[in-house]
Amino acid sequence: MTEVEWLEIVETFLDEKHEVINTKNEDTAIIKFKDEFVLLTTDAIVEEVHFSFNYFSFYELGWKLGASNLSDIAACGGEPLWALLNVGSPKAFSEKEINEFFTGLKDVLFKFNAKLVGGDTVYSPINFFSLSVIGKTKNPISRKGASPGELVFVSKKLGESAAFLRLIKKLPKDEIPENIRKAHLLPEPEVILGKTLSEKRIASAMMDVSDGLLIDLYRLCKASKVGVIIYEEKIPIGEGVTLDEALSGGEDFALLFTVPKEKVETLKSVEEELKKEVHLIGEIIKDEGIFLKTKEKTCSICPKGFDHFEFK
Amino acid sequence: MTEVEWLEIVETFLDEKHEVINTKNEDTAIIKFKDEFVLLTTDAIVEEVHFSFNYFSFYELGWKLGASNLSDIAACGGEPLWALLNVGSPKAFSEKEINEFFTGLKDVLFKFNAKLVGGDTVYSPINFFSLSVIGKTKNPISRKGASPGELVFVSKKLGESAAFLRLIKKLPKDEIPENIRKAHLLPEPEVILGKTLSEKRIASAMMDVSDGLLIDLYRLCKASKVGVIIYEEKIPIGEGVTLDEALSGGEDFALLFTVPKEKVETLKSVEEELKKEVHLIGEIIKDEGIFLKTKEKTCSICPKGFDHFEFK
Repeated sequence: MTEVEWLEIVETFLDEKHEVINTKNEDTAIIKFKDEFVLLTTDAIVEEVHFSFNYFSFYELGWKLGASNLSDIAACGGEPLWALLNVGSPKAFSEKEINEFFTGLKDVLFKFNAKLVGGDTVYSPINFFSLSVIGKTKNPISRKGASPGELVFVSKKLGESAAFLRLIKKLPKDEIPENIRKAHLLPEPEVILGKTLSEKRIASAMMDVSDGLLIDLYRLCKASKVGVIIYEEKIPIGEGVTLDEALSGGEDFALLFTVPKEKVETLKSVEEELKKEVHLIGEIIKDEGIFLKTKEKTCSICPKGFDHFEFK
Repeated sequence: MTEVEWLEIVETFLDEKHEVINTKNEDTAIIKFKDEFVLLTTDAIVEEVHFSFNYFSFYELGWKLGASNLSDIAACGGEPLWALLNVGSPKAFSEKEINEFFTGLKDVLFKFNAKLVGGDTVYSPINFFSLSVIGKTKNPISRKGASPGELVFVSKKLGESAAFLRLIKKLPKDEIPENIRKAHLLPEPEVILGKTLSEKRIASAMMDVSDGLLIDLYRLCKASKVGVIIYEEKIPIGEGVTLDEALSGGEDFALLFTVPKEKVETLKSVEEELKKEVHLIGEIIKDEGIFLKTKEKTCSICPKGFDHFEFK
């Protein structure tokens, strides 16, 4: 069974009615609560599956766990509020290790005014960490809102995180270029940009690139019942990164969002205000499918993505 | 390092200020949000540590995971709202297994009007499940409010869940008495009672008995800076259960709460209204410590409890 098949069964059990407006096909549940929306997300990471202590420091691990969850809140245009941590471990970590882990986690949470408020710790034969983050927004953005004619943007250069996993096999950590090392170990969640795109009502659909640009673009299009043409030459490829890593690498934690043409000027003013560049990569079309336009031709492509149950 | 030592370090990293009114020494974070309080709790269970598929059906596992989290919400007097699930697994479960697991989880959530709204699934060399539950209340009850002279109650018979772990070593599952089997595999969280004790402002301090009566009573007293005398003859011991299991067994998911004497009549009316018996077991005293009063004598006892890092 693939992850997609598993999720199809699981989703029949999710409650999406009354105040729960958006759970299916999303990383974050969006729930109406009084005059706002509550956002709920959770992520688990497992040693030697999602990370290795061979190259992660405890500080970096804490940071990355926080960042990946904050990225899911950012993808809905939300403001993160509180986090809950679960730790499973075969042994108690040393005081130094615990301090480093929590400093990393708190640094990234605190950067965006989120608070660590609780958690649980259990014995487990392997190390795993799971974090749940609660956020809020007045204007939640889901994957569903894209319409033909709208433009498609990503918020940062892609593929650096995947390039790290290629390079660490042959280079010592400190010989890997800083942009690539930071992208994998200390990624920056796009909380400020996501919140601004929500407040100024610029993005019509949004998600974060966590499993690879193409697979995530495919998900956004499927949820919105549209297709997309992307321009190969406009894909923002990180320095030292292959095209394949940029298209299918994963763990970029970039925002992927669609913007109606009449709002592109407002988006430009946001870029200036936040001193932050975003990258136009394509356009939403009516016909379903993902089409890659190169100088020579336009071809339909089948996304190659990360399936959590298939990679072992 | 023991779990207590680990938690002491971790707690220096928890944010307890402004709207976050109660996180330290609690299973559930209590956070002021608008005119109410949000309750956040999370629990993880690991195969062959917290459960075994040798005697848990998938339905029972889903139910118990939900019940243990709902019990933490109940212990604050809360109403559960939404749940997020994380699953780590070496292989995809079969469709039948998934359906059974989610039916169990949803049955217990639905019984108390809580909704499963999302989650994450990852590859992991071992099976683990973690659930986070969000609830709310107008009158949160913590472990801190007990005062000398108040009476101490538990909401159900104790030790049955622990007795199951003793019996399953020598008996087939279906030969174990039903009260003991249900207590371990399909425990009932005391959501209705907890909510009523909060709404009618009967309990001054409350928590759930999850690690054993004595250790949990010790925690309540420590948080409230008081002591307690319990009467051995009044401990409600489940049928087929030893005194030691009732005092130190764990996973009872009973509510443990203190009541000012002038509210005992109101408590009795609640018992009638809910058709639910609670058990007076002792009295809060000023001197710190736990004292067990038998027919012969009163002696100070040192709680023997479950430490998550010490049991392997």
